[in-house]
Amino acid sequence: MSHLVNDVDSAVQDSVDGLVRASGGKLARLDGYPDIKVVVRTDWTRDRVAVVSGGGAGHEPAHAGFVGQGMLTAAVCGEIFASPSVDAVLAAILAVTGEPGCLVIVKNYTGDRLNFGLAVERARALGRSVEMVVVGDDVALPGAPQPRGLAGTLFVHKSAGALAESGASLEQVHAVAARVASGVKTLGVSLTGVAIPGRPYTERVETGTAELGLGIHGEPGAQTVQLGDAATLVSSIADSVGAGVGDGPVALLLNNLGGVASLELGIVLRDLLGTALGSRAELLTGPAPLMTSLSAQGFSVSALPIDEELSGLLRAPVAPHLAWPGALPVGGLTVADLPSIETPSFTPSSDPAVRDLLTAVSQAVIDAEETLNTLDSYVGDGDTGSTFATAAHRVLAVLDDLPLAERPALFSALSGILATSMGGSSGVLGSVFFAAAGSASAEGVSVARALRAGIDAMQTYGGAAEGDRTMLDALIPAVAVLLEGGSPADAAQAAEAAAVRTASMTSARAGRSAYVPAEHLADVQDPGAAAVSVMFAAAARS
Amino acid sequence: MSHLVNDVDSAVQDSVDGLVRASGGKLARLDGYPDIKVVVRTDWTRDRVAVVSGGGAGHEPAHAGFVGQGMLTAAVCGEIFASPSVDAVLAAILAVTGEPGCLVIVKNYTGDRLNFGLAVERARALGRSVEMVVVGDDVALPGAPQPRGLAGTLFVHKSAGALAESGASLEQVHAVAARVASGVKTLGVSLTGVAIPGRPYTERVETGTAELGLGIHGEPGAQTVQLGDAATLVSSIADSVGAGVGDGPVALLLNNLGGVASLELGIVLRDLLGTALGSRAELLTGPAPLMTSLSAQGFSVSALPIDEELSGLLRAPVAPHLAWPGALPVGGLTVADLPSIETPSFTPSSDPAVRDLLTAVSQAVIDAEETLNTLDSYVGDGDTGSTFATAAHRVLAVLDDLPLAERPALFSALSGILATSMGGSSGVLGSVFFAAAGSASAEGVSVARALRAGIDAMQTYGGAAEGDRTMLDALIPAVAVLLEGGSPADAAQAAEAAAVRTASMTSARAGRSAYVPAEHLADVQDPGAAAVSVMFAAAARS
Repeated sequence: MSHLVNDVDSAVQDSVDGLVRASGGKLARLDGYPDIKVVVRTDWTRDRVAVVSGGGAGHEPAHAGFVGQGMLTAAVCGEIFASPSVDAVLAAILAVTGEPGCLVIVKNYTGDRLNFGLAVERARALGRSVEMVVVGDDVALPGAPQPRGLAGTLFVHKSAGALAESGASLEQVHAVAARVASGVKTLGVSLTGVAIPGRPYTERVETGTAELGLGIHGEPGAQTVQLGDAATLVSSIADSVGAGVGDGPVALLLNNLGGVASLELGIVLRDLLGTALGSRAELLTGPAPLMTSLSAQGFSVSALPIDEELSGLLRAPVAPHLAWPGALPVGGLTVADLPSIETPSFTPSSDPAVRDLLTAVSQAVIDAEETLNTLDSYVGDGDTGSTFATAAHRVLAVLDDLPLAERPALFSALSGILATSMGGSSGVLGSVFFAAAGSASAEGVSVARALRAGIDAMQTYGGAAEGDRTMLDALIPAVAVLLEGGSPADAAQAAEAAAVRTASMTSARAGRSAYVPAEHLADVQDPGAAAVSVMFAAAARS
Repeated sequence: MSHLVNDVDSAVQDSVDGLVRASGGKLARLDGYPDIKVVVRTDWTRDRVAVVSGGGAGHEPAHAGFVGQGMLTAAVCGEIFASPSVDAVLAAILAVTGEPGCLVIVKNYTGDRLNFGLAVERARALGRSVEMVVVGDDVALPGAPQPRGLAGTLFVHKSAGALAESGASLEQVHAVAARVASGVKTLGVSLTGVAIPGRPYTERVETGTAELGLGIHGEPGAQTVQLGDAATLVSSIADSVGAGVGDGPVALLLNNLGGVASLELGIVLRDLLGTALGSRAELLTGPAPLMTSLSAQGFSVSALPIDEELSGLLRAPVAPHLAWPGALPVGGLTVADLPSIETPSFTPSSDPAVRDLLTAVSQAVIDAEETLNTLDSYVGDGDTGSTFATAAHRVLAVLDDLPLAERPALFSALSGILATSMGGSSGVLGSVFFAAAGSASAEGVSVARALRAGIDAMQTYGGAAEGDRTMLDALIPAVAVLLEGGSPADAAQAAEAAAVRTASMTSARAGRSAYVPAEHLADVQDPGAAAVSVMFAAAARS
């Protein structure tokens, strides 16, 4: 597994620099590289309680991605999966702490507790008012003396950040952070381990299994489970998380550990909202990569019991550059009526000349089935003749039901027949041709102009131009003759000549022949152009 | 590679349902499962121009994740990497199109062009005003007749959606969409192929290489390149994209194809902003998964020349449930001064009794080095004695510089010595102990109470409790004796008795011994507790 880095040693610094620039001036980093990697708000005046968090890197956007109005005041970044130094934490605290004090939020890992803790004690010794909250939201190991801090920490950041932004006291901010920290529960699962830049990687998790109850540093999960369907896995996770969060309303957070496709997280989300825990969800954050484990193919579910106060804090606005996706109300599965697709209704009408024309053209196409298939067998899969013949049979079958005397309606009806009976790209293109011709015809233009409108639509949607070795190469010159007042016989002649010319086109630029080597194309007429030639010849004879 | 799905056949439906519920009632799906998978706004009154897009699934959050106020009115989802049917597109158009008309935005793939195109023609035949824009922003194959539609399509969605929201006419919305579609350029790269749920997967991209100029369906890239550092790769991409977007200001979009760690995308972003193209960036969208290729480990860079109008449209607000991360101003790399970490300055002072005490305790620790190392060799890595002795040597060396007569300052000074000279967790814990003791002492409490405050801090940050087989098991009872008015000799006796008791604790719950099997712990005193006993004994003798 490869990584997108420059120098592994500067990976965290480089990434922090990218983040700072993307903030549009709302963030700065402290001038302490390489040892001190701290991101701070630039719009901070120390007039409220500062909220500081951080930890090892590799969890981006946590934590620096959450620095800004309404959430964190500063984030301290360690190296990948390694706690930042005491000096780095202390620098962050001193950089942002004013008279109202500072709350430090720490995920429960020994290194983080010690380094953040000593920094807090030093800051206190320097006269700063600092409180610290340790988050241990992991429920992977029931009864563990030191449950790990996982993605639920983001609810602590958000609640404390919103309350601090409102001007609350350190005591109040500390209290709400402690309340959220003790309330939130999280369980993670992954289908892979974690590949760390600069280190060899061997996949530990066997295909078809998942590790349940894992942390965010690639440590093995509490148990390995067989990976069945998503709903079963999600249900098990929801049960474990739900057991710890009472029975009232909750806020849920669905965190991408980094490498799960968004499509799949949509499925996980649906399944999660379908559980007993999900039915209690009033707010939802994610699915999004929030507290990642580099690009592990896993996710975690966090739940927090909420009341009006916490709901308000979670929903409070944050600065737009933050990675926080909001905590949004969960709704039902709203299903809207399908609009009735009004099939244009036709009144059959009679026009012997048109009837003869359609009959002649259809019969000619049917007669040419084998010839066209043979042409196509050189450049494609040999079914052009059959495809056209199928449509022709259908036209003959419904001839008496068609509005033969009304041109716009007839074109529209042919469009419908080709769409349903012909199949493949040719069917859609033919249908497009007649639909556009019908619309143009309804505006009162001549047959030739209507056919030209059909060509325009085919080109627009099909993307082919004249000379690309498609049916257009016969259709365009034939219709051009008609537009210039030529007879059907002149048009047929033009179509035939043009179809013959396609045999000398050795570079197809559209359609299936585009993938065929030039030597296979030489001396073979394009089957679509040949079919057009057959049809115009029949029309001229009719 | 495994996937989080229930039934592959219902994967897209399940994911759409998750999205609809997460919108909190702002989205609905049309009642057309399984064939018609269309997501629409529920707050839509057809009084403005509708903006419809869509395509195959597997690109989430595109397209349904962008349905909502200010962006798309409806999204049509096909199966994974397969165009939706004509009927599905037509249903979407009919569901949302009112008198002002509808703009349909299509990524340039034959299937999408044809199916969306025919639906547009049919909608027109049914009397709806509909325009269509095809986006082909890929620059992987210069001069390709049909460049693919990639993540740059999102700029078209956003611009058209914002203008439509403002009440502009279909002609205006169509014009701006066409302008953005013709202006935006994109190039993608991936370090892996795409694993599709339900299909076998073999990695095509060799480790150490990357495919440059690839689409969003796992198709091979235009070229395979050796993967050097991120900056070189990004620079090459920026050159290719930059060549097509003039030389004025641009909006950039950095799209995660799904599986790149956020840490790495921060690096890519930094490198991108460092290129000539990046220096012209006024707005930035991402990095974020926006137009994914399931969970391919790659990214794409899109650039759009912008003027005031486009800048305004890109920056216009959208409903909060949308996956659009905003188009935010790019800033410089703001570097803030590191706060000076005020080292508490001490004025050396003299106190013969304290000097004798420190000397005796330090000497005792030094004398016990081998004994403590031996104890630690049974349960750890055999260096407890040396770790403590190093700190003791340091204390003796600076004895005359210490504020021996001022207790708070002395504790604080000892905290600093332990943090820098002792190393490891013990050093941090010792430092925490004296820092907290110093802060408490500054508030005027007794020595015993100050030591107890130090214990509290050690427990808070270290996470150990009494009985966990750590140095606390000797420290807590010894200080308890002092708190109750006992003599130093009583305290020393308590420490020694407690240290002896640790030899019968066979289950360590904190510290390094927590990882040691019970049989190795039996009959061995905890080396930390033994060190505390040695120190209290020396203090009592002094």
